[in-house]
Amino acid sequence: MKLTVKSLIGLRDLSRPEIEFILDQSESFKEISYRPIKKVPTLRGKTIINLFIEPSTRTRTSFEIAGKRLSADVINFSPSQSSLSKGETLSDTAKNLEAMKPDLLIVRSPAAGIPELFSRSISTPVINAGDGFHEHPTQGLLDLFTVKERKKKISGLKLAIVGDIRHSRVARSDIYGFSKLGAEVTVVGPPTMIPPGIEQLGCKVSYHLDPVIPESDVIMMLRIQMERGSGNFLPSLREYSRFYGLNLKRMEQAKKDMLIMHPGPVNRGVEISPEVADGNCSVILDQVENGVAVRMALLYLFCGGADEVSA
Amino acid sequence: MKLTVKSLIGLRDLSRPEIEFILDQSESFKEISYRPIKKVPTLRGKTIINLFIEPSTRTRTSFEIAGKRLSADVINFSPSQSSLSKGETLSDTAKNLEAMKPDLLIVRSPAAGIPELFSRSISTPVINAGDGFHEHPTQGLLDLFTVKERKKKISGLKLAIVGDIRHSRVARSDIYGFSKLGAEVTVVGPPTMIPPGIEQLGCKVSYHLDPVIPESDVIMMLRIQMERGSGNFLPSLREYSRFYGLNLKRMEQAKKDMLIMHPGPVNRGVEISPEVADGNCSVILDQVENGVAVRMALLYLFCGGADEVSA
Amino acid sequence: MKLTVKSLIGLRDLSRPEIEFILDQSESFKEISYRPIKKVPTLRGKTIINLFIEPSTRTRTSFEIAGKRLSADVINFSPSQSSLSKGETLSDTAKNLEAMKPDLLIVRSPAAGIPELFSRSISTPVINAGDGFHEHPTQGLLDLFTVKERKKKISGLKLAIVGDIRHSRVARSDIYGFSKLGAEVTVVGPPTMIPPGIEQLGCKVSYHLDPVIPESDVIMMLRIQMERGSGNFLPSLREYSRFYGLNLKRMEQAKKDMLIMHPGPVNRGVEISPEVADGNCSVILDQVENGVAVRMALLYLFCGGADEVSA
Repeated sequence: MKLTVKSLIGLRDLSRPEIEFILDQSESFKEISYRPIKKVPTLRGKTIINLFIEPSTRTRTSFEIAGKRLSADVINFSPSQSSLSKGETLSDTAKNLEAMKPDLLIVRSPAAGIPELFSRSISTPVINAGDGFHEHPTQGLLDLFTVKERKKKISGLKLAIVGDIRHSRVARSDIYGFSKLGAEVTVVGPPTMIPPGIEQLGCKVSYHLDPVIPESDVIMMLRIQMERGSGNFLPSLREYSRFYGLNLKRMEQAKKDMLIMHPGPVNRGVEISPEVADGNCSVILDQVENGVAVRMALLYLFCGGADEVSA
Repeated sequence: MKLTVKSLIGLRDLSRPEIEFILDQSESFKEISYRPIKKVPTLRGKTIINLFIEPSTRTRTSFEIAGKRLSADVINFSPSQSSLSKGETLSDTAKNLEAMKPDLLIVRSPAAGIPELFSRSISTPVINAGDGFHEHPTQGLLDLFTVKERKKKISGLKLAIVGDIRHSRVARSDIYGFSKLGAEVTVVGPPTMIPPGIEQLGCKVSYHLDPVIPESDVIMMLRIQMERGSGNFLPSLREYSRFYGLNLKRMEQAKKDMLIMHPGPVNRGVEISPEVADGNCSVILDQVENGVAVRMALLYLFCGGADEVSA
Repeated sequence: MKLTVKSLIGLRDLSRPEIEFILDQSESFKEISYRPIKKVPTLRGKTIINLFIEPSTRTRTSFEIAGKRLSADVINFSPSQSSLSKGETLSDTAKNLEAMKPDLLIVRSPAAGIPELFSRSISTPVINAGDGFHEHPTQGLLDLFTVKERKKKISGLKLAIVGDIRHSRVARSDIYGFSKLGAEVTVVGPPTMIPPGIEQLGCKVSYHLDPVIPESDVIMMLRIQMERGSGNFLPSLREYSRFYGLNLKRMEQAKKDMLIMHPGPVNRGVEISPEVADGNCSVILDQVENGVAVRMALLYLFCGGADEVSA
């Protein structure tokens, strides 16, 4: 199978078979990270540029580890947005990078649309590593992979996404991804944090967490991102935690095998209590681990791996 | 052939045959970046330190890609000048790095003379990646390479360098390089931006762009570097653009095969209009591409490649 | 032999045979940095994360070079302490990194205890690259290695450590290491810079440098760290230098083969005069060079090298 897109900008652009194909590929890459020698020559001689215009440690590290385990040459740079441009247009920046003949650009940006603009400007494939409040497709894929690994299916499951939906690129990628694979998605949060019209993406809306818990198979707790201004939409963290935090008491209403997810970093005691974050239902660390496998598959597929290297 | 210098500090220090030798070598490295597996084992087991005391993305990336395509281990560090020293002398910093047995240091610094000071302090070879307003010899070499690739020669060509000559290390390296190879160089800009006595480097001076265009074979448009204080030497950007910007109207006076170059990043609408930057005469992206090839050749030559590795 | 500790947090935790074993191993790694191809496949396919929460150039570079010469994949990140956590606990940060299956974490932090906290939180081994005013065990080991290389023994030697003992993690690691191997350690400095009770670590105390010099076999001059607030404990640098600086006049009282060490970066003219720093007795650059060898040995030993790779 071959993907119909040159770049991975968002899960909105992928078909169900394409998403399933990526998840299948990821499975075969996961095992590599358990070997004593965690390295395969698949992408030897390929150049991958990690362009992180927004500070990030875990996503950047996950991509870098994924690249190095495939033997690619990974080049990091993390300019501030201002220093990146120096008056240069983003399209010129993209073309300058393309001229150095990389095989793939991974782009994270504080503003929505920059990965897509890069992709349109050049022939090099681009993977969106999170752009503003738009999408974070590799997170969506690793969430799908983690649920599928545990539940053996996605179709028919009920997923609740809880928190600041308005400012969450993760929520958007998850809504697209889980809906396409047949899950029923409900977004949950205070009215100020749920953008009007979000139902058009194919999800339901609830302003209350309690009634949603008993019927959920998977619950994704979003991070309250004080550093992104979440505070402007909340009376107080304590209030938020009382109405939307996942704690042991609320877990009494949950199915015994409900999965608890979180894209990290976790604010213990805010959106999730420590006992729940560390409890049996939590697959938060599985998500991180699977992130490396999913990104290995994506690097392979978007570096033209399927065509040139393995053929 | 063997270079007579241990380090590459400036094109002023190289003879014409040495420059031609480097350009010849670069040609054989260019093809590697077009292979499906863009990697050769030439510098395996060599340690290259990228010491960038001044922020840089494209030059650092170009060197890093060049090093990795030759299989060298590339170590980046980009300290601020203050944190670099902590009261330590630069000579001590150099000796500390030397003690870790690198094969090559690449040094960029906001102050002129630091790469040379490093080179004098230690036996490790040093490549100057741009020092203050002094020289940027690898840019000069990639400019020469790009012109030679297109024009099949340098000797006898007429090159105009337009803009803030005073604050341009690129201009200085280009003047040395193109003059030595037999081109006739004219620097063009407002009187405030042309240092008195620049003719002694072997170039002509013009304060007007229009009369220079028709006779030029190559025109190098320098970046107006507002972040380096160019504004103090200009009435306004608009004024500058009107008198010294390259636009479609001015291009009517140019030879049909005149090459337009720019060291980047480009300020579209200031020193060059978008139509000209993207036009047929522009080789701006060729410069970026050739930068990787020229730097591969330089890493090879200054890492002692010619002696030890290939022999 | 097998080390009894999973992680290297401090020299306090190692036995004398363990320290001697590490020094022996280091010797066999030193030679690699003299080869034309400075690379062995020992740690191919191992992932090492360099987590430097505190800015550092030389220690980070030393570890990175060590890792690459062993063919490990080295991942750097240097977050500010605030951006690291974003409200996340350090234990969660550690577990997130562990989930990406690295083989080793190298941790430097401005606060004491963070490497140990990381090590307790996860099963991945941790090497402390300096934590607050606690320990800097790899520096202690390279100091031991350097003295042993020159003096052919440690036991019975007299070591003086001079300077700001209070704020020196190097002093603490050296006191533990040299004492365990049978040297007699004296710390020297103004009373404000010597913490009360330091004798309990197994060293003697002197508030005067002059009487200590004639009987010393090795003298370790610590850096006056103005950037860490040393100035609050000193009347003036000039005063300090007069009473505790090592200069040619003081050297007249020293044994002819006394070794002069310094963990760097050196403040010439403050704690040590230029003539002494560059004199025959100085082994300051040997320390830097040996740092790479010692760290290669440690990466090998703590990556499970002794068990899996070489067996």
